[in-house]
Amino acid sequence: MRPNFRRLGWAAHSEAEYLYRVEFDGINGLRSAIDNSLASFFDRESTYLGRVGSELEPVADALGHFLLDSGKRLRPLFAAIGHIGAGGEVTPESIAALSALELVHVCALIHDDVMDCSDTRRGAPSIHRQFENLHQEQSLHGSAEQFGIASAILFGDLALIWAAKMLHESGMSPKYILQALPVYDEMRVELMAGQYLDIYEQAFASESVERSLKVARYKSGKYSIERPLHFGAALAPAAMPEVYSTYSNYGLPLGEAFQLRDDVIGVFGDPAQTGKPAGDDLREGKRTVLIASTLNKVSSSQREAFEKYFGKADLDIAGVHTLQEIIVETGALARVEALIEEMTFNAHQALISGGIAPMAKQMLDQMAIAATKRTA
Amino acid sequence: MRPNFRRLGWAAHSEAEYLYRVEFDGINGLRSAIDNSLASFFDRESTYLGRVGSELEPVADALGHFLLDSGKRLRPLFAAIGHIGAGGEVTPESIAALSALELVHVCALIHDDVMDCSDTRRGAPSIHRQFENLHQEQSLHGSAEQFGIASAILFGDLALIWAAKMLHESGMSPKYILQALPVYDEMRVELMAGQYLDIYEQAFASESVERSLKVARYKSGKYSIERPLHFGAALAPAAMPEVYSTYSNYGLPLGEAFQLRDDVIGVFGDPAQTGKPAGDDLREGKRTVLIASTLNKVSSSQREAFEKYFGKADLDIAGVHTLQEIIVETGALARVEALIEEMTFNAHQALISGGIAPMAKQMLDQMAIAATKRTA
Repeated sequence: MRPNFRRLGWAAHSEAEYLYRVEFDGINGLRSAIDNSLASFFDRESTYLGRVGSELEPVADALGHFLLDSGKRLRPLFAAIGHIGAGGEVTPESIAALSALELVHVCALIHDDVMDCSDTRRGAPSIHRQFENLHQEQSLHGSAEQFGIASAILFGDLALIWAAKMLHESGMSPKYILQALPVYDEMRVELMAGQYLDIYEQAFASESVERSLKVARYKSGKYSIERPLHFGAALAPAAMPEVYSTYSNYGLPLGEAFQLRDDVIGVFGDPAQTGKPAGDDLREGKRTVLIASTLNKVSSSQREAFEKYFGKADLDIAGVHTLQEIIVETGALARVEALIEEMTFNAHQALISGGIAPMAKQMLDQMAIAATKRTA
Repeated sequence: MRPNFRRLGWAAHSEAEYLYRVEFDGINGLRSAIDNSLASFFDRESTYLGRVGSELEPVADALGHFLLDSGKRLRPLFAAIGHIGAGGEVTPESIAALSALELVHVCALIHDDVMDCSDTRRGAPSIHRQFENLHQEQSLHGSAEQFGIASAILFGDLALIWAAKMLHESGMSPKYILQALPVYDEMRVELMAGQYLDIYEQAFASESVERSLKVARYKSGKYSIERPLHFGAALAPAAMPEVYSTYSNYGLPLGEAFQLRDDVIGVFGDPAQTGKPAGDDLREGKRTVLIASTLNKVSSSQREAFEKYFGKADLDIAGVHTLQEIIVETGALARVEALIEEMTFNAHQALISGGIAPMAKQMLDQMAIAATKRTA
């Protein structure tokens, strides 16, 4: 039996209810509206998959859990705030269009886990591992690992297609949907270009802070914050040009700060909070600004220790601690924290001049804090 | 240096020229127009990638060769004929919108090769192998194989995104684009659902002709023929409902016949024509209608021989011949050929009642022959 995905949060049926929620619950109200919208879209699509064949029921289950059980909804939230800030209205239709970004992100995460060979995601097995398990449980023929990978590639594709479908079927006026498509497309091209820059950077084993910052700009600055804000603005009746530039001035530095925080968490994060093993990024050998900044200042003995442990799949907790110490001792952690602070400050400053509706401005200030002060 | 992708075919600059080409060159004229449209879209996008960073130049090169060096353009052709048959005009704008389907197919092929671990595609190394090679040539860090897979996943995603971008930016009236989006989305969901049914069917090692036919219906009937025709019709000002049903009555049987022909070629095809090793589908252990139909009629000694050779990665040419003989002796090849003939006949018949513009009807008859009489 499929779990009941309608159990989530509240269901709003009128514009008045939506507005009430957003005005009184702010960001949490928006997040509930997004969750709710994703749940009803998913419900329709999983019914469709079930009709194609019972073989697709496990697909619908897995995607339902992945989409609905967790997720910070960061990109739809930025899109929704971007929409409000540009004078757009919060309605069930606009929330559906804006929530589509979460499905783009589901595609990115599912494919990312295949690309990284990650076993877990949010404390549960990654999708390719889940279907590797299904292959084993059902004693199917051929390679279980390959079946898991093939499934995850297809489901990531499906999530990307669902995203577009959710936007197209949102019920927003066609005029606004068409207005938003160029930003939507550009965001997705940038995402894939950024992802390739990232894997290339890892393989190139670059020690350049500048190159790592460029990856952070594409992967986070643009994809996670600036473009969602622009997308939200493009879905509003007539956003002023200055709104777009304010969003860029806020989104790009904040996105980099967000990515830098991610990098710090990947090295120093608490497994109980992150759902990932301690020092996971160190084990994976992830080339980040934090690592580049460390390597710029290591002594020769530190470099030796670094090369002994960094990127080793069997890195134990003692090795993790050694690497953490080097990162602290070289001042890299402090430099990255200072960079996060500076970029977050710049993001807040960008809102002052802005041309953004006051409620959205307040929410963007809150989001900047949430994105950079978090521990998971 | 990037090759000059503008070298392809003719460039038409006016509607009159387009119409002239299509009226006098028929399907070949349409194919040239599609090639030309893909080349100019690609040109813009590869310039964009180059601006993001020089790391992306090999990406643009690889995708350019993959997209432009070969390909039968089957889906854009059906879409174009579907458009003409529903009263749509052949213009540079409509050709751009219709050609988007080729990029959807590029996504499917690139991802398919990763899913199947295929080394070659159209006689050249598959994309994931190309980037595995790049990793080795540049002596990059980490697993070359994993880098190849990760790259191919991202480039398949990018092709899917480019497809949507090409449609959105085609310059067709927004009204017609919006009209076509539901068919476009449904086609893509069906594609992914069909692909999963296919890999599940392979792993399930089904011997059911009925189940194999269902996979053929989703993978080819709907995705390759029926939906492209509907997509073309939806891009026309006002297609009559009977046009859609004629396209289904033509497309579904023809699509199955097309897939059955593919299956026959996968077993009996000439490597010089297919660009793949002889008996490749046998080595891969591909569960097709042809195989299910064989297994329904094998003697116990034939089954023994079959199980010894089928799906073995090291299958040699003698083993291929043994399997081919069994497939012929059980009458499976003859039954599948009869099925192809029957379904192709049904497809031709569907056009008689039709409601389809005469030029399109004639082209669809030609396409039915091309799709089912081919040898590669």
